[in-house]
Amino acid sequence: MRIPGFRFAGVSAGIKKTGKPDVALLVSSALAAAAGVFTKNQVKAAPVCLSQERIRKGRLRGIVVNSGNANAATGARGLGDAQDMARVAALAAGCDEADFCVASTGVIGVPLPMDRVRDGIALAARELAEDGFERFALAILTTDRGPKIHVVKTRLCGREITLAGCAKGAGMIAPNMATTLAFVATDAALCTKWARALLREEANATFNAVSVDGDTSTNDSLFLLASGASAAPRVTCDDRAGKIFRSALREVLSSLSTMLVRDGEGATHVVRIHVAGAKTERDARAVAYRIAHSPLVKTAIFGADPNWGRILAAVGNAGVRIDPLRIDIDFDDVPVVRRGVFAGHGDTEARAHEVMTRPEYSIRVNLHAGRKASAFTTCDLTREYVSINADYRS
Amino acid sequence: MRIPGFRFAGVSAGIKKTGKPDVALLVSSALAAAAGVFTKNQVKAAPVCLSQERIRKGRLRGIVVNSGNANAATGARGLGDAQDMARVAALAAGCDEADFCVASTGVIGVPLPMDRVRDGIALAARELAEDGFERFALAILTTDRGPKIHVVKTRLCGREITLAGCAKGAGMIAPNMATTLAFVATDAALCTKWARALLREEANATFNAVSVDGDTSTNDSLFLLASGASAAPRVTCDDRAGKIFRSALREVLSSLSTMLVRDGEGATHVVRIHVAGAKTERDARAVAYRIAHSPLVKTAIFGADPNWGRILAAVGNAGVRIDPLRIDIDFDDVPVVRRGVFAGHGDTEARAHEVMTRPEYSIRVNLHAGRKASAFTTCDLTREYVSINADYRS
Repeated sequence: MRIPGFRFAGVSAGIKKTGKPDVALLVSSALAAAAGVFTKNQVKAAPVCLSQERIRKGRLRGIVVNSGNANAATGARGLGDAQDMARVAALAAGCDEADFCVASTGVIGVPLPMDRVRDGIALAARELAEDGFERFALAILTTDRGPKIHVVKTRLCGREITLAGCAKGAGMIAPNMATTLAFVATDAALCTKWARALLREEANATFNAVSVDGDTSTNDSLFLLASGASAAPRVTCDDRAGKIFRSALREVLSSLSTMLVRDGEGATHVVRIHVAGAKTERDARAVAYRIAHSPLVKTAIFGADPNWGRILAAVGNAGVRIDPLRIDIDFDDVPVVRRGVFAGHGDTEARAHEVMTRPEYSIRVNLHAGRKASAFTTCDLTREYVSINADYRS
Repeated sequence: MRIPGFRFAGVSAGIKKTGKPDVALLVSSALAAAAGVFTKNQVKAAPVCLSQERIRKGRLRGIVVNSGNANAATGARGLGDAQDMARVAALAAGCDEADFCVASTGVIGVPLPMDRVRDGIALAARELAEDGFERFALAILTTDRGPKIHVVKTRLCGREITLAGCAKGAGMIAPNMATTLAFVATDAALCTKWARALLREEANATFNAVSVDGDTSTNDSLFLLASGASAAPRVTCDDRAGKIFRSALREVLSSLSTMLVRDGEGATHVVRIHVAGAKTERDARAVAYRIAHSPLVKTAIFGADPNWGRILAAVGNAGVRIDPLRIDIDFDDVPVVRRGVFAGHGDTEARAHEVMTRPEYSIRVNLHAGRKASAFTTCDLTREYVSINADYRS
């Protein structure tokens, strides 16, 4: 699979003890339009600080990534190491170092083994190839069960374009590993200003609407690079072409973010929380967020227990003005609560329980207070999640 | 143990399938000064709606409590049942029904078995006794491992007074059980207005600063009743006597709320999160709250893993402006982070791990941004918590 204008590499540099790939490189043959969305955590890893600054001008030649070490909470030395990574990668790829961003994921608080990182980057630069996307996608992983890739091909004004996305993450932070990283490369030509707004909006609807445990890591980064190497004309706004591109990007981000939840540490169910009938979208989102993050709801999902009282209690705790006596709750197609009280018959609990044995299903809440809606994707809280995250690091 | 001016009872009414005590009654021989603090959840159980209204006038004769059924999400019928409970209790105790409050805890969404409840209240009224406090404390329990009682005797102006408190709760909501309930009875004489402010402030520093899972139930209620039967003069403000009373109340509430965490579902460690060096108390509290509620921190506590990166990430996520490069973190007396980076030596991790094997210890965070501080008590997130809360109700 190729994305015109880009070359990729993924190699093993020995940062991970396992010997698995841990240095990844993405290079555009010319300056690409670039946008990024980064963690809102105030404790930001060095590569995030660097990349946020550099992506401001809206043009990049490449991104260098390492897994196995987050370069977070590493002080001034960490910032120097991130700069070094960009410098070495840019030099090896024949670009200006100011046109390179950096992303890291892995252990927090341990300095990068820079000798290995430098050697790894040099090796990756030699292995850059147009068909290297899958190797790139492998080298960014940490505790993931496998690579997360989603590719969309569509047509803009009669010309084919490709959007290729990959991501890593399973739980927001695995045993002192950090992060969601995601990269989307496209050969479409994009106006940077529009691409920036687009990425932020679509990230809010996808990556920022999924939750494994509600913890935002120090390293979360999402990059969009557009080489413009396709023959399609440049997209600058939400016109017909813009809408097609937005929809394709939404598909990529939505698919990747759902893969994160499906791969959530210990997760056995993926549940889509739909909240409708809110006064504002903000209200709908706050209620969906609260339900998606309640440990009691998440353990009930694990136990396939249609415990609607917990959902009702979470709605009441969302900080949104609601009328409890108007709330409806459905599990997929099974109505359980109407006007705030149990509305079922003899077999309602059994039918709702049956829905909850499905690997993926929806919980729908209607507040009957307005016309706005929002959705959040979550997973269950399991004994396995606790085991994974309680293990003493060694 | 007696609290002059009060009689108590706790009896089995058959609301619980186990036959354990489930109706409790507290009656003051005259109108007592009364204050209450109730759940902030907008989905409030019927007894909370009733009690919030009735306690406004600041005087009560008694409280009737049932466990085993929360009378929550029960609509108009639930409100009628709560009124009935107060009426039956007041009649049996020879009081005005408007002077009675109600508290319930247990299953959500199921109507109260009112025949049993009425018979239970009648039986409890016959068994009212000055030495009935322990039986009262037993009859309010649900999934608790045992009764939670703390009594303080102190002197106001040379006269002995008693404060007797009891509470129930283990996890904020056990498998569709709801609630923290707490009751403090004292023979001191209190000005109602002052008692109200006092109870709110001291609840914030104690009950509202502990967390098992961060879910606020539909039924949470804390009552303070002062009979004035002691010979001590009436306390009306934070003068010398007021300060003594405040300190005694703090001791009772602090002890009861810590018992809740210790009895937290599946909890194996109780950890006090101290946050100092904040610009405002609100900031300190927000940071302490965030650390105390992070699933990643709570699983690390379970695993005795001094994973300071997770604590740092939680601090950065608290919505409070902080400088990551000023943060210090200590586990009891072991300094682990200084100025945002690992500050230990070879054996620091091992020493911090040793601290974390203790059943109770402190995590201290200094933001070095000001002089305000706050604390939160939390417990670990364990496989056992998941098991308890995932069990399908039956």
